[in-house]
Amino acid sequence: MNKPQLDIDQLMSELHELAAISECPEPPPTVTRVVFTETDLKARKYLNSLYEAAGLSVRVDAIGNTFARWEGSERDAPAVGTGSHCDAIPHAGMYDGTVGVLGGLEAIRSLQRTGFQPRRSLEVVMFTSEEPTRFGVGCSGSRTMSGAYSPDDLLQLTDDSGDNYDKVRTAAGFKGDLSSVKLPEDNYSAFVELHIEQGPELEAKQLDIGVVTAIAAPATAEFIITGEGGHAGGVLMPVRHDAMCAAAEMIQAIESLAIENSSPDIVATVGCVDIHPGAINSIPSRVTFTLDLRDIDGPNRDAVLTAIESQISKIAQHRGVTFSSRILNADPPATSDERIVAAASNAVKSLGHSSQKMISRAYHDSLFMARIAPMGMIFIPCRGGVSHRGDEFSTPEQIAAGVETLALTMAELAQ
Amino acid sequence: MNKPQLDIDQLMSELHELAAISECPEPPPTVTRVVFTETDLKARKYLNSLYEAAGLSVRVDAIGNTFARWEGSERDAPAVGTGSHCDAIPHAGMYDGTVGVLGGLEAIRSLQRTGFQPRRSLEVVMFTSEEPTRFGVGCSGSRTMSGAYSPDDLLQLTDDSGDNYDKVRTAAGFKGDLSSVKLPEDNYSAFVELHIEQGPELEAKQLDIGVVTAIAAPATAEFIITGEGGHAGGVLMPVRHDAMCAAAEMIQAIESLAIENSSPDIVATVGCVDIHPGAINSIPSRVTFTLDLRDIDGPNRDAVLTAIESQISKIAQHRGVTFSSRILNADPPATSDERIVAAASNAVKSLGHSSQKMISRAYHDSLFMARIAPMGMIFIPCRGGVSHRGDEFSTPEQIAAGVETLALTMAELAQ
Repeated sequence: MNKPQLDIDQLMSELHELAAISECPEPPPTVTRVVFTETDLKARKYLNSLYEAAGLSVRVDAIGNTFARWEGSERDAPAVGTGSHCDAIPHAGMYDGTVGVLGGLEAIRSLQRTGFQPRRSLEVVMFTSEEPTRFGVGCSGSRTMSGAYSPDDLLQLTDDSGDNYDKVRTAAGFKGDLSSVKLPEDNYSAFVELHIEQGPELEAKQLDIGVVTAIAAPATAEFIITGEGGHAGGVLMPVRHDAMCAAAEMIQAIESLAIENSSPDIVATVGCVDIHPGAINSIPSRVTFTLDLRDIDGPNRDAVLTAIESQISKIAQHRGVTFSSRILNADPPATSDERIVAAASNAVKSLGHSSQKMISRAYHDSLFMARIAPMGMIFIPCRGGVSHRGDEFSTPEQIAAGVETLALTMAELAQ
Repeated sequence: MNKPQLDIDQLMSELHELAAISECPEPPPTVTRVVFTETDLKARKYLNSLYEAAGLSVRVDAIGNTFARWEGSERDAPAVGTGSHCDAIPHAGMYDGTVGVLGGLEAIRSLQRTGFQPRRSLEVVMFTSEEPTRFGVGCSGSRTMSGAYSPDDLLQLTDDSGDNYDKVRTAAGFKGDLSSVKLPEDNYSAFVELHIEQGPELEAKQLDIGVVTAIAAPATAEFIITGEGGHAGGVLMPVRHDAMCAAAEMIQAIESLAIENSSPDIVATVGCVDIHPGAINSIPSRVTFTLDLRDIDGPNRDAVLTAIESQISKIAQHRGVTFSSRILNADPPATSDERIVAAASNAVKSLGHSSQKMISRAYHDSLFMARIAPMGMIFIPCRGGVSHRGDEFSTPEQIAAGVETLALTMAELAQ
């Protein structure tokens, strides 16, 4: 197997061109790209032009998941898949997801340049909406593709304007039967995703590559706290039932439960807080906040979630406020396929890169792809472990190492 | 002096008509009416039509403060003023402010009906923007009218879109020299405002009228907490500098400092919290929150504000986040004029209403009018002490008692 012939300059220029397709008020490299917006559609159009230029055949499913295929000599054999997402949360960075999509494309092009002829077809997937920004749940594309989400689950999602998933996807031009999104279990013989680590380990250890052996189990929930509003001047402190003061105590409790838990890997985040009515001189009557909770150990994650709910209930009772909670998702962890881990490790070795096996604490579309295909992931370092921020950064050299590792891994898996 | 001839049905119908001019997604009686919006302009137009129908002459100053005048026999003598505001915070009630404007108009009409001829002119003022919703500071109209705010202070205000006060007021059609807004100190011989109590005292004691002897000292501030963002899955708990967790601890500290303070009248409210980037799977990197702090005792209020800032600084240091704070306003309390208190008490007595003297914990345009005129306020009960909510409510009988008390008080002060 010849070394893949990378054009890192082309890939970097494509990453920057994609970053410029953004609805963020800040300039690139800070990026906002929310699913099914004009910006998302523009990004998809750009990607499709690149696929076409590479001679790949493109299929788009009923919710916009996009498959760009390089046909192998055995067209009917299960394909080797790669890919990631191109949507970006508000004020995000330019590498999260995109390195796996454009890097997946460049991996294929780098193999094409060597004259390599795959037996199995190679496919780059651009998953619709890995980020939960618009519909409150992450990975709606791969969830549905894997069958973890049914069409009915999709139809129950609504965005902040109250528009449901179906209305929004059809307005964006994605039509067809939602039940056609689910892939058969023999669609891919292997699925391997390239991604920035979104954590500090690889950089701290000065390693080029992380070969992922498992993906931590994520859960998200929404809590609505209802107290009693009123004029900030008119209601004395002892008789208040301030929903924000209650929420503040709950947020503190969530943090403490995560810090004090015996698992060092558990992380809890309250990323959204919305106050009603939200006026400087009004006592908050209602606060909605979200919880993102993850652990490598699924049952421990669930135990902490239960402890959080119990603590929130106690605080609500004590403060004379009410609350409701809704689990948005609580997914099991996923384990990588040994054959893919071995192929990636071989690729790293033959390319002379340094690496370690590691856990993915962030979750990815691969968490769901693991339900219908042998799964693996390849991580590259990112500066300071920073992600979901405008200063998210990986060097061209780090990206090149990841892409050539991906290319060799896919080539081995395709034979 | 004859008893004022009230038309409470007309007044109630006008209050309801005004409530229907709202930009709130919920239906009336829940109201949102933000200064210098189309809705505000529509409300002003409606009021002006009522003033005209009552034969009052109308003057509008450079920032939209509106004066409707019933000329007295001594046109050059300082007038007797009344009035309040018609802007409403998001999801507010329909009585806050409006009872003082439309009730002020009805007080004049009720005197006109008796054939009363005032010596001094009587004026109803509709103050621009008592609420701090748009520009972050309350009473920008009366602040400027009283000289507490200079034109330069006004020019430094911006709304959430970044538009400054001057741009917004001129776009709304209010033009002219900002320095012309300040009134001379002999403009009013007395200023007396009718308002719902926005607290529970009068209702609890089953009293018709509260004669206000002093207005508590309000302060508002904004705090910006800057921590470190990142992916909710990627950064382990011990190395986080989560701005929302820090803010939650600060909000708890603010609540405790207010509860534990020796003054039973001190109230502290965090009414707005804004998270950046505000995504379910992103660690908050920046949180902006507001503080509304009031006490009848000005120096105690200032001491608590200092204690809050010191506590916030300690929490920030402990958590490895930074903060900046900005005092938006810190006004001294105001004392009512004895002559006005006496006139209101006489009016209550001759009308056979029950009453008490009391403090206003909420602040009002009268706080600033006290700087340029002898000031007084008349309170009526509101159900449960509730204000700044859609279910804010006073009965027609309670409103009628307030309006006739106001009318008699003004009549006495006008002679």
